[in-house]
Amino acid sequence: MNTTANISTQQPQAGKKNLSSRTIFYVSDGTGITAEVLGKGLLSQFDGIDFRQIRFPFVDNPEKAAECLNRIREVREQSGIRPLVVMTMMNPEINAMLRQEDALFLDLFEVFIAPLEKELGVKSAHTVGRSHGQAGHEYINRIAAMNFAIAHDDGVSDADLKNADVILVGVSRCGKTPTSLYLSMQFGLRAANYPLIPEDFERDRLPDTVLPFRDKLFGLTIAPEQLHKIRQERRPDSNYAALDTCRQEVASAERMMRREGIKWFDMTSKSIEEIAVQLIQAINK
Amino acid sequence: MNTTANISTQQPQAGKKNLSSRTIFYVSDGTGITAEVLGKGLLSQFDGIDFRQIRFPFVDNPEKAAECLNRIREVREQSGIRPLVVMTMMNPEINAMLRQEDALFLDLFEVFIAPLEKELGVKSAHTVGRSHGQAGHEYINRIAAMNFAIAHDDGVSDADLKNADVILVGVSRCGKTPTSLYLSMQFGLRAANYPLIPEDFERDRLPDTVLPFRDKLFGLTIAPEQLHKIRQERRPDSNYAALDTCRQEVASAERMMRREGIKWFDMTSKSIEEIAVQLIQAINK
Repeated sequence: MNTTANISTQQPQAGKKNLSSRTIFYVSDGTGITAEVLGKGLLSQFDGIDFRQIRFPFVDNPEKAAECLNRIREVREQSGIRPLVVMTMMNPEINAMLRQEDALFLDLFEVFIAPLEKELGVKSAHTVGRSHGQAGHEYINRIAAMNFAIAHDDGVSDADLKNADVILVGVSRCGKTPTSLYLSMQFGLRAANYPLIPEDFERDRLPDTVLPFRDKLFGLTIAPEQLHKIRQERRPDSNYAALDTCRQEVASAERMMRREGIKWFDMTSKSIEEIAVQLIQAINK
Repeated sequence: MNTTANISTQQPQAGKKNLSSRTIFYVSDGTGITAEVLGKGLLSQFDGIDFRQIRFPFVDNPEKAAECLNRIREVREQSGIRPLVVMTMMNPEINAMLRQEDALFLDLFEVFIAPLEKELGVKSAHTVGRSHGQAGHEYINRIAAMNFAIAHDDGVSDADLKNADVILVGVSRCGKTPTSLYLSMQFGLRAANYPLIPEDFERDRLPDTVLPFRDKLFGLTIAPEQLHKIRQERRPDSNYAALDTCRQEVASAERMMRREGIKWFDMTSKSIEEIAVQLIQAINK
């Protein structure tokens, strides 16, 4: 795979302007993750344009800045259109170097740091890479949460459920694992997840191991047709993947959750991010 | 735990101004994740201030906007200081409603969408929650990568290593698991990881299962003192956690990697985000 996130397959032709295809650079003297997250959010608002994305992290000395400059110039000359550059750059000298090129610069820190300094009455540290430093309590908590999520994925362990912040239940392949991981990584929540299996459907009851934790127990569900498609990829033409099985399991799971008064979320047309944020709102209530 | 991310433990006293403690709201008609990531990056630049962070996602109708407004006003009145509000708000009516309050608004979309519209020559979609939609190829790829990372965590399976984008090796607890998960979630990379275990140290060779994949094999290492601290928490006063064991294992692991010409990264003073981005640069080379 192409890890420069070359989303477009179109190659720009030299000298020929193609306004429906643009290149966006994410440039930072840190990891560039903030620039990339914001950049993607912005690009998603523009339909009908193919965006080619190029990352330039750790641009923290004049040599790297020159390399980055050359690449931006190259793209501009080959495509005949100036590139977009989303930046988080704390170093003012390197910032000035990059600005020599003809590009649309969207500079996150420039735009927001100045009003914040005024509002807070202090100068910013103007140091690099702080937002992801190792030292903080939040960081350590996030790592612990990720380890917890892995250790409690798919019902592997129920030893430590009392220390979970949230426990997810649902049928196999409804999205419990990625949702748990996302909750742990993005929000530092200790998320366990428990599959509902044929034995549970036979007993027509949620697993005994999770019922004591009703206050942090949430369900995930999904449309049977979509579940069928996902399971088909995993075990084609199996009983497990059959549409009928999916229908029965989803109906049974929703019935159990309704009976126990467990709040559940439908993954069918929502992303993991949306479900994760809704879960956090539900936990807070 | 407090999932409103109340970082500060200080409670503002009514009517008393405390400028070293401020409240920041992340407000969005989507998940608010973009606002939060940027906001945290900005806050990290300001030392000596306790920030209390409050999330308001999915503010997509006048009722929710009113609720959010009330909360902002409440904080302002209780603390005597106006709050900070980082926003990604596509809906202009709701945006205008919120702006009635006295706060410092840092509005990501307002600042960047207009210049982008001009540059791209098209109007933005002004629709909500697109950046995290389910449909896209990138999203599906990311979910598949997360499932891959889980299935190939800690050497659990070596069935599918040929399909990995990257394979990490290192001693137990050096940070392989969170790094693999981060690579999969943030960048959609299929990351497998393999622990180095006493048997490998005895043989003084990297595991046979990973050696055929030298071109995508990378090492992680960590200072023995820090490894000792991490292992102490897991199995206090065990041989596994002993400083001597940690020293021997780290020295042995680094010797093996050096001999095989495997590039490695030191987790000691770097965050997972930094290591992940460095890994991606190394893979691209």
